[in-house]
Amino acid sequence: MHIDLNADLGEGCDTDEAILELVSSINIACGVHAGNAETMQRLVRAARTRGLAIGAHPSFPDREHFGRREMQLPLPVIRAELLYQIGALDAIARAEGAELAHVKPHGALYNQAVRDPALAQCIAHSVRDFNPRLKLMGLAGSPMIAAFRAAGLAVIEEGFADRRYSADGQLAKRGTPGALIDDTDAVLAQVLALVQAGTVTATDGSVRHLRVDTICLHGDGPHALEFARAIRAKLRQSGVEVRPCA
Amino acid sequence: MHIDLNADLGEGCDTDEAILELVSSINIACGVHAGNAETMQRLVRAARTRGLAIGAHPSFPDREHFGRREMQLPLPVIRAELLYQIGALDAIARAEGAELAHVKPHGALYNQAVRDPALAQCIAHSVRDFNPRLKLMGLAGSPMIAAFRAAGLAVIEEGFADRRYSADGQLAKRGTPGALIDDTDAVLAQVLALVQAGTVTATDGSVRHLRVDTICLHGDGPHALEFARAIRAKLRQSGVEVRPCA
Amino acid sequence: MHIDLNADLGEGCDTDEAILELVSSINIACGVHAGNAETMQRLVRAARTRGLAIGAHPSFPDREHFGRREMQLPLPVIRAELLYQIGALDAIARAEGAELAHVKPHGALYNQAVRDPALAQCIAHSVRDFNPRLKLMGLAGSPMIAAFRAAGLAVIEEGFADRRYSADGQLAKRGTPGALIDDTDAVLAQVLALVQAGTVTATDGSVRHLRVDTICLHGDGPHALEFARAIRAKLRQSGVEVRPCA
Amino acid sequence: MHIDLNADLGEGCDTDEAILELVSSINIACGVHAGNAETMQRLVRAARTRGLAIGAHPSFPDREHFGRREMQLPLPVIRAELLYQIGALDAIARAEGAELAHVKPHGALYNQAVRDPALAQCIAHSVRDFNPRLKLMGLAGSPMIAAFRAAGLAVIEEGFADRRYSADGQLAKRGTPGALIDDTDAVLAQVLALVQAGTVTATDGSVRHLRVDTICLHGDGPHALEFARAIRAKLRQSGVEVRPCA
Repeated sequence: MHIDLNADLGEGCDTDEAILELVSSINIACGVHAGNAETMQRLVRAARTRGLAIGAHPSFPDREHFGRREMQLPLPVIRAELLYQIGALDAIARAEGAELAHVKPHGALYNQAVRDPALAQCIAHSVRDFNPRLKLMGLAGSPMIAAFRAAGLAVIEEGFADRRYSADGQLAKRGTPGALIDDTDAVLAQVLALVQAGTVTATDGSVRHLRVDTICLHGDGPHALEFARAIRAKLRQSGVEVRPCA
Repeated sequence: MHIDLNADLGEGCDTDEAILELVSSINIACGVHAGNAETMQRLVRAARTRGLAIGAHPSFPDREHFGRREMQLPLPVIRAELLYQIGALDAIARAEGAELAHVKPHGALYNQAVRDPALAQCIAHSVRDFNPRLKLMGLAGSPMIAAFRAAGLAVIEEGFADRRYSADGQLAKRGTPGALIDDTDAVLAQVLALVQAGTVTATDGSVRHLRVDTICLHGDGPHALEFARAIRAKLRQSGVEVRPCA
Repeated sequence: MHIDLNADLGEGCDTDEAILELVSSINIACGVHAGNAETMQRLVRAARTRGLAIGAHPSFPDREHFGRREMQLPLPVIRAELLYQIGALDAIARAEGAELAHVKPHGALYNQAVRDPALAQCIAHSVRDFNPRLKLMGLAGSPMIAAFRAAGLAVIEEGFADRRYSADGQLAKRGTPGALIDDTDAVLAQVLALVQAGTVTATDGSVRHLRVDTICLHGDGPHALEFARAIRAKLRQSGVEVRPCA
Repeated sequence: MHIDLNADLGEGCDTDEAILELVSSINIACGVHAGNAETMQRLVRAARTRGLAIGAHPSFPDREHFGRREMQLPLPVIRAELLYQIGALDAIARAEGAELAHVKPHGALYNQAVRDPALAQCIAHSVRDFNPRLKLMGLAGSPMIAAFRAAGLAVIEEGFADRRYSADGQLAKRGTPGALIDDTDAVLAQVLALVQAGTVTATDGSVRHLRVDTICLHGDGPHALEFARAIRAKLRQSGVEVRPCA
């Protein structure tokens, strides 16, 4: 039994170093919503040394709002942005003797693509046209995954440890009561259910099947590091290996 | 009995609108670590309509890492950066018929100034030389406050609802066990103790005096909005008025 | 007899230091199309020491194309941008005991405002609402000047040493043959005619009246410094004082 | 008889479209000193349609001063920056079915590398490690060329139409009298001598051998387009073919 743990790095958090020791995959900010060439190079080296899978974490061109704002841009512009960011990281990685394994869209780009198949397809085609061996990471069980697969790409389905799911398999909307799990034991229970049983208990109490390949560990926010450490420890105790997706 | 609630806005979070309804003071990102002129103008208008105190939230010049990275810069450079950011917001506010009330340093600038009196003094002198009627917001009970006061400025002492304090009155270091409070009831208990009794229960169980003028509501991070709403509701139930510092 | 010489500084050119010795007014890039707080502070100090008039040189929010691209933005957004940039420089100047004297729009913002009275009015109202004692620099004899004056602001009419004027008093369009003067003697002749006689010889050979308060010295481009030095020397020989507009 | 004509594009100049019709090679700003993904994509398409050679035009990480400022950075940081910028453009080009042909450093990076062999070597190794088939464009006859060649890369030696050369084969320093040629006939004479005879007349009147593969056409500055058109026309009249370096 095994699972991938991933985290978004290179966004300035002082927890980056600690998170590197807990995950098997990292998604590196590509200098647009955050990060720069130097940070990217340092993270590539750190990942390579530790045998972590290296992913690009491209964003909308929204330096001013950290890639958090929804944007309506022509798809060819989004394609150019994705190629720019992925190509930049790829060049840095190759010069270090490392290789990109995957791409995970950042922030609003990820969230919009969950709901917008045309955007998800644009992401998938851009990645495929750059390198069809790259995997695409997206929200487990969402329409985004189908759009990624339709482009012929391998996908990595991502689950969340600290967010609740609705009975329809979607993430419960942030800001609604009970959408977030802030009890460590409940977080760990959700992780184990996802990994060992492939199930999740929805907000209405029903148990749903949900296949996940990776679980996202946050490096940002007050409780991030605590939760990340607890999850890693719990997996070890439970005999679950933490390793990148094949 | 009254207290100020403050939040950092204009950094791209989609919770900004909701947070505006819960606080009495806002700290607006000034276009360097995040934000831009348009966002600043919109937030100034929103604050003015609601009678909220408007503060500048200047940062180290670190667009690439969201102002989160510690930086060692010559103090005159930091002074120029502060003047730039505060002056920019001040002009936008004045043109809207509004007025800046305070300045709260962002991210690494805040954290470094808590520990570095020369940096805290540089901030205080920069603010004073711009407008001596501006108040400076800083960590309640920390040496930063003394440095701000020594410059002749009014201070706003900030407390945290969801972080624990050590017996020495400092915030328990993030990443150490128990540094964060993730139980809503415990958060509310800490808020009420701070506001009503001026005390806080430290990590060793001792009860310490801590005077706070304002409590920070996070807009960022998974639990932010839930906690913010619970705090606001609890204060109302407890007969505590939420209003800006005089 | 006297004239102002102005130059745009803080855009990275290594000729800035040399140009400072030749002009009586400088227009400082405000950190958007170019420049940053540190550069602005250094230029303010240099100007103050030399008794030069200090102007803000705000731009469209177009960091990616150096403010050279035409943009169609809502006027309230342009207003916020202008206030941001002018306010930022004003704060730095005041903290140095200096004072802003004028504003000169940069690049595409200037060029569009020459032709677009609504944009020129937006600029004028933004400046006036910030500080009605600021002067506005614009293209001599153009409709822009009328729009600035209509807002009740003092204007500084700018002429060009190295560009030819059409018979209708407009600048001959760049890229058309004969639009530019690249002979030093012809440049000097045009400057002297503008300053001493208030006239200019148009591309069709006709002599037109053109009142100018200031002449722009370029710091950028291959011949900039040579021309600037020749102009300054010629004015001295001709008994024309170089000084800021009153 | 043939020569390459190159120009730096994507920096916001409104002459880009006109220059595209005159050159055989373009150097595209890579989103750091100027440009963005969308502009890069548009220029790649325009170059591909016209059969122009496509080059990356990377810069020091100096968005604030247009890459014009000299910087002392650790070589590994410069390497990461180069890889970032070249990789970004390469990805955009490949997705358009086009191919990068060369790299030309921008602004201060170019100028410093002319004089600093360690920097020139760093550039050469970074380019080679990314793609050893890329050619490097540098100042004809300078030590930079030797450093590029030593790394095993093909070089493109660049000459200037409007700048004079010293008797030692270096460019006469800008700002010194006679360093620039602003007479169109003299510009054309220098171009023809370089292309047809492989010689240049130095500032002391001596005739020097100077082999050039390409001549730089400026798109920026007042006279740029006039000169560019005159050079192109003169070459055609003289039976010199304009085409990219093989």
